[in-house]
Amino acid sequence: MTVDKPLAHPLGPLSAAEITAATALVRKAWPAETLFQFKVVTLQEPPKSELIPYLAAEKTPGTPLPEIPRRVFIAYYLRNTHKFHEALVNLSTGVLERNVRIAEDKHANGDGEEILAIEKVVLADKGVLAAVEKLRLPEGAVLVSDPWIYGSDGVRNGLFRDDLRVMQCFLYMRDPANSAEPDSCHYAFPLPISPVVDCAMLEVVRIDVMPTGLDATTKTIDELEPWQHAPPSEYIPEAQQDGLRTDLKPLRVVQPEGASFTVSAYSEMGRRVTWQKWAFKVGFNQREGMVLYDVHYDGHPLFYRLSLSDMAIPYADPRHPFHKKQAFDLGDVGAGIMANNLQLGCDCLGSIYYMDGVVADAEGKPHAMPNVICVHEQDAGIAWKHTNYRTDRAVVVRQRELVLQTILTVSNYEYILAWVFNLSGDITYDVRATGIVSSQPLDRGLETTPHPFGTVVHPGVLAGHHQHFFSLRLDPMIAGHGNTVVYQDSVALPRDDVLNPHGVGYTVKTTPLTTSGSLDIDTAATGRVVHITNPAVRHPVNGAPAAYKVHLPPMQPILADRDSFHRKRAEFADHPVYVTRYAEGELYAGGTWTNQSRGGDGVRTWAARNDSLEEGDPVVWLQFGLNHVPRAEDFPVMPCENLRVTLRPANMFLRNPALDVPPSTQAVNCSVSLNGVVDKVNGANGTNGTNGKNGAACCS
Amino acid sequence: MTVDKPLAHPLGPLSAAEITAATALVRKAWPAETLFQFKVVTLQEPPKSELIPYLAAEKTPGTPLPEIPRRVFIAYYLRNTHKFHEALVNLSTGVLERNVRIAEDKHANGDGEEILAIEKVVLADKGVLAAVEKLRLPEGAVLVSDPWIYGSDGVRNGLFRDDLRVMQCFLYMRDPANSAEPDSCHYAFPLPISPVVDCAMLEVVRIDVMPTGLDATTKTIDELEPWQHAPPSEYIPEAQQDGLRTDLKPLRVVQPEGASFTVSAYSEMGRRVTWQKWAFKVGFNQREGMVLYDVHYDGHPLFYRLSLSDMAIPYADPRHPFHKKQAFDLGDVGAGIMANNLQLGCDCLGSIYYMDGVVADAEGKPHAMPNVICVHEQDAGIAWKHTNYRTDRAVVVRQRELVLQTILTVSNYEYILAWVFNLSGDITYDVRATGIVSSQPLDRGLETTPHPFGTVVHPGVLAGHHQHFFSLRLDPMIAGHGNTVVYQDSVALPRDDVLNPHGVGYTVKTTPLTTSGSLDIDTAATGRVVHITNPAVRHPVNGAPAAYKVHLPPMQPILADRDSFHRKRAEFADHPVYVTRYAEGELYAGGTWTNQSRGGDGVRTWAARNDSLEEGDPVVWLQFGLNHVPRAEDFPVMPCENLRVTLRPANMFLRNPALDVPPSTQAVNCSVSLNGVVDKVNGANGTNGTNGKNGAACCS
Repeated sequence: MTVDKPLAHPLGPLSAAEITAATALVRKAWPAETLFQFKVVTLQEPPKSELIPYLAAEKTPGTPLPEIPRRVFIAYYLRNTHKFHEALVNLSTGVLERNVRIAEDKHANGDGEEILAIEKVVLADKGVLAAVEKLRLPEGAVLVSDPWIYGSDGVRNGLFRDDLRVMQCFLYMRDPANSAEPDSCHYAFPLPISPVVDCAMLEVVRIDVMPTGLDATTKTIDELEPWQHAPPSEYIPEAQQDGLRTDLKPLRVVQPEGASFTVSAYSEMGRRVTWQKWAFKVGFNQREGMVLYDVHYDGHPLFYRLSLSDMAIPYADPRHPFHKKQAFDLGDVGAGIMANNLQLGCDCLGSIYYMDGVVADAEGKPHAMPNVICVHEQDAGIAWKHTNYRTDRAVVVRQRELVLQTILTVSNYEYILAWVFNLSGDITYDVRATGIVSSQPLDRGLETTPHPFGTVVHPGVLAGHHQHFFSLRLDPMIAGHGNTVVYQDSVALPRDDVLNPHGVGYTVKTTPLTTSGSLDIDTAATGRVVHITNPAVRHPVNGAPAAYKVHLPPMQPILADRDSFHRKRAEFADHPVYVTRYAEGELYAGGTWTNQSRGGDGVRTWAARNDSLEEGDPVVWLQFGLNHVPRAEDFPVMPCENLRVTLRPANMFLRNPALDVPPSTQAVNCSVSLNGVVDKVNGANGTNGTNGKNGAACCS
Repeated sequence: MTVDKPLAHPLGPLSAAEITAATALVRKAWPAETLFQFKVVTLQEPPKSELIPYLAAEKTPGTPLPEIPRRVFIAYYLRNTHKFHEALVNLSTGVLERNVRIAEDKHANGDGEEILAIEKVVLADKGVLAAVEKLRLPEGAVLVSDPWIYGSDGVRNGLFRDDLRVMQCFLYMRDPANSAEPDSCHYAFPLPISPVVDCAMLEVVRIDVMPTGLDATTKTIDELEPWQHAPPSEYIPEAQQDGLRTDLKPLRVVQPEGASFTVSAYSEMGRRVTWQKWAFKVGFNQREGMVLYDVHYDGHPLFYRLSLSDMAIPYADPRHPFHKKQAFDLGDVGAGIMANNLQLGCDCLGSIYYMDGVVADAEGKPHAMPNVICVHEQDAGIAWKHTNYRTDRAVVVRQRELVLQTILTVSNYEYILAWVFNLSGDITYDVRATGIVSSQPLDRGLETTPHPFGTVVHPGVLAGHHQHFFSLRLDPMIAGHGNTVVYQDSVALPRDDVLNPHGVGYTVKTTPLTTSGSLDIDTAATGRVVHITNPAVRHPVNGAPAAYKVHLPPMQPILADRDSFHRKRAEFADHPVYVTRYAEGELYAGGTWTNQSRGGDGVRTWAARNDSLEEGDPVVWLQFGLNHVPRAEDFPVMPCENLRVTLRPANMFLRNPALDVPPSTQAVNCSVSLNGVVDKVNGANGTNGTNGKNGAACCS
């Protein structure tokens, strides 16, 4: 529809005006001179009990839409204090409904302003500079300081207090031979000094020296030895010694008749997408970044809400200070505020639609984030094919995908996250991990000795082994609300003279989850597949419950031991599947405040309630990841590691949902035969294809 | 190079002339009136000892090429007998070097002529027609008979003799309301009668009646009941009741400056491909279809030979006659002779190069197979990206893939098989399973009762559960010959006050395989990854052996029990990895003659030799597959199920091999912004992207 005035919708991401209005209401509650550091200003989504009727009414022309108050969740510090507050603002009434200081040891996410401020503090600190002095860095060396989440280790004595909000900083320098280049890859020059900064007071409280050998031995600052020359390793194109490839020809995707999808505004910032029987709403927020709501296919309800819930990235190196390296990139920082401004011709190929976001800055002012989500179609090879060998007639249908992509930069690292929809009813969550591995210094001369905790990727540079865990949150409404999660195992039948005399039989055993808990998947043993089903809606032919099944890549659970803070905090990293009963406010698998968290808040804790799932309001948490044992090829920037989770209909639709897709034809696809073009096979026999002679040949 | 006369090369697939010459030499050895049924006429590849020096000489300008005799392997029957022969012809000398009759119970693959002949025999057989009579099919019903491999069950009495070369046929009819349509999907109308045909005598020797209930109860032919009306389920576009989608806009891939790869002839039928530092030879034969030889990247040797070795597809239904359903599609028929004639604009998109094949027919005459392999480039999203958050400079490089695709039609079923190469040194084997599931009749009225062995996909139609196993054969030469296979497990470290005081540490344990055998992969327990390494070639920085690692999808091993013929025959379906020591002639994981095989010939048997791998000539056999529990959505034709195996460099190259790929730019990619085009967000705020205003915006 065309919109004349900004739209309101209960699921509409906060507008700039709403952010301003909401933070103003918080400021009003304090003396005028109060200084604030806003951390989160985000939509407080309405409870399901209010939203479900609203979404139903929306789809029923003529039905009045229920009034739902518009609420904003706000988290802030009183600037330069550890006084952390949570507030709830009702914009519909202009009332500050809640405004409380929360526990001392709960710490907020980092924000962009703070991260730059901390680097300044570190690089100006006398103690840090004195320590760096010991390294006798080359003339004109330029220092760089990357902030890193402090993690938790439970240690709370003297200067070692993980209950104070601090950050550990990793020091690097740019290539001394090229110091003027701001994009020189400083990760090739890690320094063994790690200043710890109090985030409230913005001061260096401690300087750690890293172990740089094969064991836990560390030097004191006084024992630090002069830096030894090492070569650079640059990723910027102009720095490539041997130049760039010149023989990769352009490849373009064109849609002469335009794209097949449409976008409309369901609110000022919210966008509704329709494509090939799919319809859903797209939201964006500071914490989760892209969120999908109200996902339907061909009028069938499928998912109420889809989001990446959190990530955990624990490192293998147990030596101080590396033992604290475990990042929760969504909870510790935020997928929204780290989203890239995607650029045409670079981050996607073809005909692209861009969506914008708006978040709050530390002052509580709106901060526009253009192009945080890009939407495009792509060809995905053949969807289905059959050739009748008697008539030689082939019917080929190509697969098409609609991709919604967002890209995060978490200081050294990048995540490319996409929801992908296709013509046969599949939804895939596609993750690509790229960017630069977190590097640490290694004593020169040790490079060729196998290191227990990492891979040497460059002279003097160790890339530590680490695990990546992603937690995808599915709030399903498969064929409507009231779903049941079941798992199917394939089991061999015992020998039986009548039924299984030859020992080849197997069958599929289906088990429903009746209470909240976790599931493991041992494919080799059971071929287990998880299905989200709707027992109330049956397939018209076979009577099976309407279902979507889950295809998860295999995962090695977190290797940190049961008593470790890594495992306590990463409440989702120990099982590939958790199922909880829906409860308001339970959105984040690692808990609300993950920064220096200590566990006890998150999906493991919620699942342990043993809630009954009989009433049928399950939330499915899918964990997947990779154990990254770095390769030399992952430096200075790593080729994408790709992970895909697929949600696929299973007895949800009468038959193949892509049966009505027009067959692939040359008339539409206008492919080009290269026979006689790229080849030099003149003399040789083999006509190289009827296509060589007949560019218009086709299958139907 | 340009070729004036047909080229000879030891790896060149047989030419039409060579096929004619070779079979003529066999005919000459017999009386003039002898009738032949040729089954296999294929290149006998030279032994490694001869080929390695040849391939080396080829790459050393000025070096004379060793003379290697040209040999042809031939398998044939004396027509209408069970007398099965193997022959070896030396074309260089014109000598029939070997010509022997082999064991009675070894049976050849099916051939196209035979398969059509058997259908004729069945549909003309009086006994079969009498049985069909009992079904009282509708007026004008047209019968169809699909031949099916008989499998083995070890039963050898009376008419039940699995040592005779027989086929079991499955009967269907076309939609009685649309009998004139030759492409009507007969799999929607399975009939309960299965004639068994002697392939030599071409006569029906037995008629089985199928169990059509939930247990093993079967009727006699006299007890067969009249067919009950059921609706059709068609996949051809013109038969779609509700018409086809009209809103999927064309999407085209264009390469205005042409493709980035070149093709040349290394022999009359052999093709050499070069693309982005990759170079390899492509062969094609009756059994394996596409084979890759002599694969190099940037001058580094990687693989001596890559091929799909075989498949096994055992079914879950233990009831006679279904208990014999296990197909070995390469061994039982042949990936080469089942290859589709790929058509421009249908099977690939963009700029496509087609390669032809030639095989022998049953008379030993050459049979041309145009377009059996297509070659094209495709965009594969982002290869790597990093944004410097301090300067906001992003460097984005797109991934490009070169795809070599072949598609098989195995009567009802299709396999889309592709080797995929990328810019960062990965080789991926991509499998898509599509086509029509093997269907069997089910008594009407039982549709909504859960079936132990399958899924009801249509009224009266059961699609049996089955497992797919693919065996990929890698003959490696990573950084040269003399490789070692190792596996890496990630293991938690015990707590230790000095090294692991917080219990977060883990390390990577590497174990070499010293003797031939199998490996299992339990990702959850160990995160195991298999590496093919070259201990003699070390990474210049970290000293690790040059290696390629293997990413395999998880697999549930064959469920048929240890004593079953399914398991005995599928010598590769019980472990995801087998490693054997190279031995001449060991190319096929399930043995040379899989049709009605009984095991004892194949990779399990070879691995059991416990050959030492110290000398370093390992062959790596990778098994992967899927347990297909059919969905209603898999009928009447199934959307592709996709499986990917990736071979990825690990400390093989100095650094990221894609570092020299030019960054992605709008100037080259010419993407199009859809903002303001597909959206209707006029009134709404949110500019929808600087790109909306600036179609030329880009990142570098």
